[in-house]
Amino acid sequence: MNDGSPFGSDAKLHHVGMVVPSIASVRRDLEVSEDPTQRVRVAFFQMHDLTVELVEPVGENSPVRRSLERGNKLLHTCFEVPELESAIESGRRAGFQLIRKPTPATAFGGRRIAWVFSQALGLVELLEHFIR
Amino acid sequence: MNDGSPFGSDAKLHHVGMVVPSIASVRRDLEVSEDPTQRVRVAFFQMHDLTVELVEPVGENSPVRRSLERGNKLLHTCFEVPELESAIESGRRAGFQLIRKPTPATAFGGRRIAWVFSQALGLVELLEHFIR
Repeated sequence: MNDGSPFGSDAKLHHVGMVVPSIASVRRDLEVSEDPTQRVRVAFFQMHDLTVELVEPVGENSPVRRSLERGNKLLHTCFEVPELESAIESGRRAGFQLIRKPTPATAFGGRRIAWVFSQALGLVELLEHFIR
Repeated sequence: MNDGSPFGSDAKLHHVGMVVPSIASVRRDLEVSEDPTQRVRVAFFQMHDLTVELVEPVGENSPVRRSLERGNKLLHTCFEVPELESAIESGRRAGFQLIRKPTPATAFGGRRIAWVFSQALGLVELLEHFIR
């Protein structure tokens, strides 16, 4: 990638994701939502001006369990974009490969998300601004 | 930690750190600074409104080499604070242990940094706002 706007000029940081063995072990006062499709439970909290998404694996086959076992905590960055398809296309030109196509996410009240990955810059979640 | 301001009310996100095998493999147009004490080379760039610090290991004993080998990309968050000692003390009450005491950092023109860690929330760099 050769510019500072891989997902289009209107993308903004939404949160960083962090895997934890259990959300309750970090904080007990958070609203937790379960995403059976992604086999995770998630909860958001504010750390100064940064929004952190805590991601707890559900079941042995959860895709984040391996990260947890390897001792990774920070998993991904998430950028909010006006429209997913054009952000994905823009990201593709900047070296980000689509690894999970747009799908509504329970953690965001049905707003659509997509996942992209670059060998250089890792895993990025894209979150559409408006619900469809 | 039980509040959203573990490092004091004036702390602000400064950047997230990401380990890469080589900074040049990501971007060739960045100003790179070497920190022999920490055995890393670092460079900053903007990804939308997020500042990303690329961290490249220097030598086999670099402290970030293990993260790289385990496939971790995102390493740490960094918060800028008005004064390190009070931020460290505030963080301690919120469950963050001091793991590297305040020291001037070449990557920040001599401004002081410190490193803290919490089992729940991982590795955090604290960066003092003003140079001493």
